[in-house]
Amino acid sequence: MKTDNRPAVVLLSGGQDSTTCLYWAIDAGYGPIHALGFDYGQRHRVELEQAAKIAKLAGAGYAVLPLPTLAAIGDSALIGPGDVGAIDRAGLPSSFVPGRNLLFLTAAAAYAYKLGAHTLVGGMCETDYSGYPDCRRETLDALEQAIRLGMEYEIEIVTPLMRLSKRQTVELAHGLPGCWDALALTLTCYEGERPGCGKCPACLLRAKGFAEAGHPDPAAEPAQ
Amino acid sequence: MKTDNRPAVVLLSGGQDSTTCLYWAIDAGYGPIHALGFDYGQRHRVELEQAAKIAKLAGAGYAVLPLPTLAAIGDSALIGPGDVGAIDRAGLPSSFVPGRNLLFLTAAAAYAYKLGAHTLVGGMCETDYSGYPDCRRETLDALEQAIRLGMEYEIEIVTPLMRLSKRQTVELAHGLPGCWDALALTLTCYEGERPGCGKCPACLLRAKGFAEAGHPDPAAEPAQ
Repeated sequence: MKTDNRPAVVLLSGGQDSTTCLYWAIDAGYGPIHALGFDYGQRHRVELEQAAKIAKLAGAGYAVLPLPTLAAIGDSALIGPGDVGAIDRAGLPSSFVPGRNLLFLTAAAAYAYKLGAHTLVGGMCETDYSGYPDCRRETLDALEQAIRLGMEYEIEIVTPLMRLSKRQTVELAHGLPGCWDALALTLTCYEGERPGCGKCPACLLRAKGFAEAGHPDPAAEPAQ
Repeated sequence: MKTDNRPAVVLLSGGQDSTTCLYWAIDAGYGPIHALGFDYGQRHRVELEQAAKIAKLAGAGYAVLPLPTLAAIGDSALIGPGDVGAIDRAGLPSSFVPGRNLLFLTAAAAYAYKLGAHTLVGGMCETDYSGYPDCRRETLDALEQAIRLGMEYEIEIVTPLMRLSKRQTVELAHGLPGCWDALALTLTCYEGERPGCGKCPACLLRAKGFAEAGHPDPAAEPAQ
């Protein structure tokens, strides 16, 4: 399917889920597609580089918006009680900033407004990330409403992975034209390694998904 | 009234409305109070300096969060070159940054979470700014819901000026202990002048409010 009158903004982090969403959006007939990344002080800036490569491979536009606000808020934990690596009252690392996806999506909506796009696509998933309440569909429904009212502009937040397990996400990606090659470029590892370290929680979760789907991970080969 | 167990984050731009809100919050018994500004690339950085002076005068904390995202997205006349009076395709002033208050409030909520505060106070007002849909109470109610769900944290967005005219806001400020002195430090002018240029729409609106309330503007004197 090829269209050029259903513009969409796809939040692209350079990871497996957002890359799958990018190809899902292409397959679903959205276009032109504007991939959007955020420079929020992530530990591994290589994510942004991989995202740029993935967007290029997909034939999508790509922009990066600066969002140092999160790091500034996270650092504010250092001026209050608590040390780096400390755990706050909710059992989360003290550098954790709640509502990260609310900020990403609101900024993405403003970007979409400027482009005349009415669709945001994001890899939020409540199946594997139940500890992150800003990934839940109920949260995104409320945010959609706030954005619609606050911008007087119709925005839909589409989340194709919301109710999929990691295995199902791998199966979805496997069936999307071009997506498998792009997955080879994705970065998941908390240590910023490609191929992943194989030991961190993100690597383990990713490996589990591919194993359950019965496909070898295309990224588990020498870095491209 | 003096309390130290009702912490609140007050969005403080250095203007008349947010300064009135700061003193409203003190008078309403909130405390400690954390005034919060955003460095979003505003044309007049003197706003941040005035806000710092006002917070100090009020005995409140003050922090500034970087938010260059808006400037990166936007083509607003207020945050870049352009004609302040121009109208964009949606019939809104070109100074309108879609979702600006959504971003400010979401970031402020994350900051409040870090501080253990459950109250945000903002000068949003739908009486005089009906062209700005992110100032409306209905929008803020939806955002409150998105934040509560997305952070799993109770947040209320308090907007004391929401249904006041400019005249009523001046009258409110006049009755708040200490507020009048602080108003002398505020900056409203689109040209960044203190005292204001007296000609821009913001100066004219401000002057109208003071005239209708029958009080001389304390800022209409040599800059402090």
